[in-house]
Amino acid sequence: MTPTITAFADSPDGGVGLARDMRVRWALEEVGQPYDVKLVSFGEMKQPAHLSRNPFGQIPTFEDGALKLFESGAIIFHIAEQHPGLLPTEPQARMRAIMWMFAALSTLEPPIIDLEQSGFIDRGQPWESDARMEVLKDRIRVRLQQLADWLGDSDWLDGDFSAGDLMMIMVLRRLEGDNLVEDYPTLVAYMARGMARPAYGRAYDAQHQVYLAASAAR
Amino acid sequence: MTPTITAFADSPDGGVGLARDMRVRWALEEVGQPYDVKLVSFGEMKQPAHLSRNPFGQIPTFEDGALKLFESGAIIFHIAEQHPGLLPTEPQARMRAIMWMFAALSTLEPPIIDLEQSGFIDRGQPWESDARMEVLKDRIRVRLQQLADWLGDSDWLDGDFSAGDLMMIMVLRRLEGDNLVEDYPTLVAYMARGMARPAYGRAYDAQHQVYLAASAAR
Repeated sequence: MTPTITAFADSPDGGVGLARDMRVRWALEEVGQPYDVKLVSFGEMKQPAHLSRNPFGQIPTFEDGALKLFESGAIIFHIAEQHPGLLPTEPQARMRAIMWMFAALSTLEPPIIDLEQSGFIDRGQPWESDARMEVLKDRIRVRLQQLADWLGDSDWLDGDFSAGDLMMIMVLRRLEGDNLVEDYPTLVAYMARGMARPAYGRAYDAQHQVYLAASAAR
Repeated sequence: MTPTITAFADSPDGGVGLARDMRVRWALEEVGQPYDVKLVSFGEMKQPAHLSRNPFGQIPTFEDGALKLFESGAIIFHIAEQHPGLLPTEPQARMRAIMWMFAALSTLEPPIIDLEQSGFIDRGQPWESDARMEVLKDRIRVRLQQLADWLGDSDWLDGDFSAGDLMMIMVLRRLEGDNLVEDYPTLVAYMARGMARPAYGRAYDAQHQVYLAASAAR
């Protein structure tokens, strides 16, 4: 059975693969699992049909037979449990790879989303402040330095490439263009290693095609 | 072998169980696993000994023989895999419980932390703004309403109590005193159900004892 994921019909990211379906596409490509994509508009995301897939009205979701999942972390973990290639088989190494998925989502991503959201929330408002944005950036810099220190000369976070790296690289990509991650050559090289993987390329192209089609239809 | 977790020697939460060791203590109590606690000061958290447990210098960590873990989500998942009681055995129900752990950490917690951190970052600064705080609160209200709609008349998020409920209730507790979650009787009752569990009470008392001892020593 071919699973179906949902993705933005018209992604606000300009087709550069920052929407969270990219993470799931990459995981599916890594394990060689074909998938169908159902595109949903912003209006459809708030309708009952989509809320039955995800009560928070977000993408991506994942449906495979009777199983309905949301949350990119949970979907990728499920894919990694069903197929070899994204988690080590040795139990402690497997658990550490899962730990890095949680670290990407719980320790790295929240201050990065905070910076992103503050950009939207503050723009043009009386409280808008460059000094405030610098405080947010400094919090992110602390995490980036710690992550770079951890990586050192290693190719990946812990042994071979895993779902933990996939998630971490996708979280770091959210900083592209912010002049933050670019200051950490270790992290730039780490991201480049991930993005050079053929599975990443296939996933990127697939989501970019959706964007091109949506643009052509406008 | 008895696992060892780390916790704040002097928790900034005033002993009310909002530090993230509480989540892990609760999980350990639910499954009946005794544990040791190593208390670390804020200074020690930035030293090599603790950074070898968690490169981001945070608590809690979990050590069991050769296995070292950080991230409360990962630690609780590990405990839930090792012991019955926190995840259903039926595979799809198990996967949905794991999904709710990710939902608590990735969809509910980030805007809640953002509100909390903005309180610290903005206080007394020229950009401090009540209107900005209201925007942050409105984002949280959207999530609380969606969660209350999902719960409806159910006791727990999906079937029996699981690690997903444990994580969700601990994330919601971060809002105590903010006059937000109090507006959703469904969520107030849900939290109360979790906090009435004997394992929660034992975990709460254990962390509170640490706080009382630290206070007495001051």
